[in-house]
Amino acid sequence: MAKNTDEYIQCAEALFERFANDPNVRVTVGPHAPYTVDDDALIKVRDLAHKHNARIHMHVDETQTEIEGSLKQYGVRPLQRLQNLGLLDERFISVHTVCADDAELELLARARASVVHCPCSNLKLASGFSPVAKMMALGINVSMGTDGVASNDKVDLLGETRLAAMLGKVVCQDTTQMKVADMLYAATMGGAKALGWDDRIGSLEKGKDADLIAVDLGNIDALPVFDPASQLLYSAGREDISHVWVNGKIVVKKQQQEGLRPLSRENAQKITKTWQNRI
Amino acid sequence: MAKNTDEYIQCAEALFERFANDPNVRVTVGPHAPYTVDDDALIKVRDLAHKHNARIHMHVDETQTEIEGSLKQYGVRPLQRLQNLGLLDERFISVHTVCADDAELELLARARASVVHCPCSNLKLASGFSPVAKMMALGINVSMGTDGVASNDKVDLLGETRLAAMLGKVVCQDTTQMKVADMLYAATMGGAKALGWDDRIGSLEKGKDADLIAVDLGNIDALPVFDPASQLLYSAGREDISHVWVNGKIVVKKQQQEGLRPLSRENAQKITKTWQNRI
Repeated sequence: MAKNTDEYIQCAEALFERFANDPNVRVTVGPHAPYTVDDDALIKVRDLAHKHNARIHMHVDETQTEIEGSLKQYGVRPLQRLQNLGLLDERFISVHTVCADDAELELLARARASVVHCPCSNLKLASGFSPVAKMMALGINVSMGTDGVASNDKVDLLGETRLAAMLGKVVCQDTTQMKVADMLYAATMGGAKALGWDDRIGSLEKGKDADLIAVDLGNIDALPVFDPASQLLYSAGREDISHVWVNGKIVVKKQQQEGLRPLSRENAQKITKTWQNRI
Repeated sequence: MAKNTDEYIQCAEALFERFANDPNVRVTVGPHAPYTVDDDALIKVRDLAHKHNARIHMHVDETQTEIEGSLKQYGVRPLQRLQNLGLLDERFISVHTVCADDAELELLARARASVVHCPCSNLKLASGFSPVAKMMALGINVSMGTDGVASNDKVDLLGETRLAAMLGKVVCQDTTQMKVADMLYAATMGGAKALGWDDRIGSLEKGKDADLIAVDLGNIDALPVFDPASQLLYSAGREDISHVWVNGKIVVKKQQQEGLRPLSRENAQKITKTWQNRI
């Protein structure tokens, strides 16, 4: 555990060095949130990220309390502060962003930054309702996130995307918003763009990595299927994912892990039970 | 199809007669909604229901448009109108009730009426966010509903209850509200009470009908289980229901239908596919 900002930066530098020549790892810096990281540290983090052309991943505008704290301590809202410190550009990943006002959304749009939308977490923590339709209308790149198990019990990206589509309709009071194609884009290319990996993953294109999932829409709970895309968004869940390929290689087949270290569901259950009572 | 209110009432009378001696059927009258049924018809429906001591099931306060229409046409909000017409008592089932204001919630509480909360439908139709925590605090009996497939693609009562718990926290801005026990109560006894069947179903008690489901919390996506009730609410879905008993008799065993007319999942899939393209 690092003792101060400089030690954290040194640890990060070591990581950048370690993965400099690994084509499958790109290091991202993650200052937690505006209310836990001071200006000096943010400037160091910014310089580090820019030096390595790395993404900055930060929880921003998650709650109204955070906004009020920022106005009191810094005289500006969190995204204005980050803009003033030079953090906002196309490499900035703004997680949550539930309570952003119109001026802040403009800042994100102009910076061509990305937002990671985690609706389940925002609900369970009573953070609020994200203005996602507004973000999309402004051209902000919206991607889908689950957040961690502390605020999301299912960690189901398909379920998260469905929830985002449904919540978004109420927030903007328009059932025609949050279109199926836009939501599936957010769950795939939106994420790839946010990470800066859209040259490699996020869509089915010649030359890309072939990271794929197959979703079984033949289950009785999905039938009949009139529009596969709509069915995928509104009916499917993680339990319907049958196959997974990473870079063209199959790693999950009929819901069982394949490859070098095969792990059956039964074995995974056993391991979980062993560890359950050791926490 | 009946031509006018009197014909509808005659059809209903015939139904009451038909099931008068069937212990497993209790007829409920269902005038659709305040904006589609006029005062004269509502009075006839009320008299019919009271004559047979039957429930009245009605979509009320689903959207802001409905409220505005009622104020314009009748000079009062929908629940005040129903109160004036003598429909509100412990036999009244108010479905949706998304846009009820404090005075209307008071009316429901004083009448000891029930609310059927259908959060998924309220989201997909952009109806709004129901003030469920307020209802529960006032002692209104809240039950869970899925609404139909036109506005709910999963029809998953467990998923619906989870969504209600999470949405409710944001609406009342308090993560400690929508307690696990209250939500599971709404999904079981809440429904039984709304229907007036709580003497027979809704809880595990000696002398009741033993309508039961078994939910498999041993799946890898539910493990580890620290608090079964919390896990049931926040992690389980319809896909985890393994067994179903009706009045003590098993009808679904390991997700396959049992009994007089067994229907395997495979057979159900086949039937669905046959009908898919005939609609």
